[in-house]
Amino acid sequence: MPSQFDPPSGTRDFLAAQYAKREWAFGVLRAVFASYGFEPLQTPAFERVDVLLGKYGDEADKLVFKILRRGEHEASGEADLALRYDMTVPLARVAAAYGSQLPTPYKRYAIGPVWRADRPGRGRFREFTQCDVDTLGSVSPLADAEIICTLNDAIAALGLTDFTILLNSRKVLSGLLEVFDIPDELGAGVLVSLDKLDKLSPQEVIEEIASRGLPERTAAELIGAMTADDAVERVRTALKRSDAAMAGLEELDRVLALVSAQIPAERIAFTPRMVRGLSYYTGPIWEVVAAGVPGSLGGGGRYDHLIEQLGGPDVPVTGTSLGIERILMLLPDDVAGQKGRVDVAVTVLADDLAVASFALAAQARVAGLRATVYLGSSGKIGRQLKWAADQGARWCLIYGNAERDAGTVTVRDLVSAEQEAVPFAEAGEYLAGRAVAGARDERH
Amino acid sequence: MPSQFDPPSGTRDFLAAQYAKREWAFGVLRAVFASYGFEPLQTPAFERVDVLLGKYGDEADKLVFKILRRGEHEASGEADLALRYDMTVPLARVAAAYGSQLPTPYKRYAIGPVWRADRPGRGRFREFTQCDVDTLGSVSPLADAEIICTLNDAIAALGLTDFTILLNSRKVLSGLLEVFDIPDELGAGVLVSLDKLDKLSPQEVIEEIASRGLPERTAAELIGAMTADDAVERVRTALKRSDAAMAGLEELDRVLALVSAQIPAERIAFTPRMVRGLSYYTGPIWEVVAAGVPGSLGGGGRYDHLIEQLGGPDVPVTGTSLGIERILMLLPDDVAGQKGRVDVAVTVLADDLAVASFALAAQARVAGLRATVYLGSSGKIGRQLKWAADQGARWCLIYGNAERDAGTVTVRDLVSAEQEAVPFAEAGEYLAGRAVAGARDERH
Repeated sequence: MPSQFDPPSGTRDFLAAQYAKREWAFGVLRAVFASYGFEPLQTPAFERVDVLLGKYGDEADKLVFKILRRGEHEASGEADLALRYDMTVPLARVAAAYGSQLPTPYKRYAIGPVWRADRPGRGRFREFTQCDVDTLGSVSPLADAEIICTLNDAIAALGLTDFTILLNSRKVLSGLLEVFDIPDELGAGVLVSLDKLDKLSPQEVIEEIASRGLPERTAAELIGAMTADDAVERVRTALKRSDAAMAGLEELDRVLALVSAQIPAERIAFTPRMVRGLSYYTGPIWEVVAAGVPGSLGGGGRYDHLIEQLGGPDVPVTGTSLGIERILMLLPDDVAGQKGRVDVAVTVLADDLAVASFALAAQARVAGLRATVYLGSSGKIGRQLKWAADQGARWCLIYGNAERDAGTVTVRDLVSAEQEAVPFAEAGEYLAGRAVAGARDERH
Repeated sequence: MPSQFDPPSGTRDFLAAQYAKREWAFGVLRAVFASYGFEPLQTPAFERVDVLLGKYGDEADKLVFKILRRGEHEASGEADLALRYDMTVPLARVAAAYGSQLPTPYKRYAIGPVWRADRPGRGRFREFTQCDVDTLGSVSPLADAEIICTLNDAIAALGLTDFTILLNSRKVLSGLLEVFDIPDELGAGVLVSLDKLDKLSPQEVIEEIASRGLPERTAAELIGAMTADDAVERVRTALKRSDAAMAGLEELDRVLALVSAQIPAERIAFTPRMVRGLSYYTGPIWEVVAAGVPGSLGGGGRYDHLIEQLGGPDVPVTGTSLGIERILMLLPDDVAGQKGRVDVAVTVLADDLAVASFALAAQARVAGLRATVYLGSSGKIGRQLKWAADQGARWCLIYGNAERDAGTVTVRDLVSAEQEAVPFAEAGEYLAGRAVAGARDERH
């Protein structure tokens, strides 16, 4: 039963630990993308409805959050703005708006929330982070290969190693339809069925294709070729009858050769039956899967006309998306390695000692440590030590009347429970030394 | 005349340079906030309308972007969600939702966009970043002082030094009304007028106060005391007649003593005429101003009952906001210090050389440099060198047939135009060495 204080259905509050994990991941991704020369782009949360709607069909339009007009127009019940549904429509608008101000090729990434009024479910949110990397303005397979390397490096940098990149091509799939004499009007449907080979049995897929109007024998031949142990060889042989398919195959082989310096051969494979949301792709397509993980960790492909269809200029594009929400669920919660809220907790044992306690915390911060003073109302050392431990602090600085008289501060190590008197003015330096020594010990 | 491809009115696209500047600033702020033990909180972009509306009055409600209900309910023209207007209402909801799961005190920061359907203008946006730091659960002036130190350090860490922190207190202002015998029902109006002393002449403010119903002589005494050269002393003396005011003054003096280890005395001052949006503050209030900059760079105060009024628990709070959009406008555009899109640009002079070029770029990335290969269609070295320069690359790696035959790569320094042949397998190591040497030279 949701409480009135829960965030809206399908959205989440990120408290400190989750925020740290997410920011760590986004930082890793930004660094990988930058290492390939991709530059960041951030667009507004909302776009005008005419920019956003009617681009992906009625089903998508139903999932768009629309924003009511304001002021005297509010009563009209009409929307003039809508929350972005993905990063591609804004990219098309930016490409149209900034045109020649953008570099050629324009290599950009976008990491940020998108909103879809989908039915919320396990791992499906109404507000979630989308992470896209695209190269606009290059027809070269090098651009596809670079994107695939970027995707591979990004997932690996997040700490995942056990994943596979399935590679295929829109041109190969078209050639496949051609060599199996599948009529144009049945092609899209056959590919939709083909895409179900990971969920249905081969016989079920054959029957589904037959029900679309293809002779059962043709369907059986096609699925037989796709699901054989030597499927890749059989498909490669069959495709020799189509020039278009051979061109697509050559492109794929070129991509495979280009990525070979970076991606282990066993991690990436030509996968004829991998279809992917096909409609707008025009060249190589890919998808990242991991054993035991339903769905994909990412995917993409070349879509040379989509930007124009979305209202932008006619520019060739290849790009990829990371399923960052799914990837985050696979990562350990402490992946960011942040320990505790602070490194140093400073007591405040009496009102007239507070100024010195403040100065001690300031010393610790200058030494590069996170530090805070006790803000509660108890003057008892026991309570304050418990508070220090609750903060996850490594050290508690104890400053009482005895320390004031001696010109020192007592530094208590909350792990070893050892404590030491340190001259007041040297507290920061002392802590910095201990922190460095601690980091060194952890490495060994 | 706005183009159809402009972002919606009052919103902005952030391309690479602006994004880098903003991310740099947010990173600096996160580090400062963390150094004080504040932890991050991120809430959804939208809240339910019942959570969001009716909290700040009709004027604010008019500025809220409301989201239409979806599906069959869309036609109703009703809204069920609304984009967040600030970070305080979501904080109240989070305090109510997570209660005992939150640490005590709960010290959190929030950096993120908020949306207000204000009339867009110079420096006024409909989507802008809000940056809030708050401590929930401490009544101690130490919490106020800690927040002020955090605010000071944050602005200083962003590179601004020439700013002043004006300090006052709700209790002092109440005491002031008391000792000048200003009737309760005129108090709020008098303070609103007082707040105009930075825009109107003293005489104009006296007249405005008199027009509210206060005897002109009382108004003149009050304004005389506030605007005298020795205003602080005169106000301090006058306040001795009110116990409440003296308690407020003591609190302020305590805050001033606490921050003295970190904030230069000339940067922070008790400023009796600084009133600030007064209604919900209950204790110390502050505002950061800079010479020549209209408005404030930040401000805040103690608001011990606001969270409860907003639907949260009754918890004391002190907090501050940074005017980060205004601060960003004051910072140089290259403050992030990022140079060029890549460090290393790699030629692709022929199709059969591309795999090696890819491997060279990968070497450079492993060496910690940003690198990309040429994705265009020209095989001419001149065009590719121009491209490399356009990327802002420091080095261009030239790999042609001669280099292939020799087992080398030509490393061209695009600043000095010197070039050197380096064994192919040592390119990454060589570049890493050059990058370190370059960074060392820059420091000297």
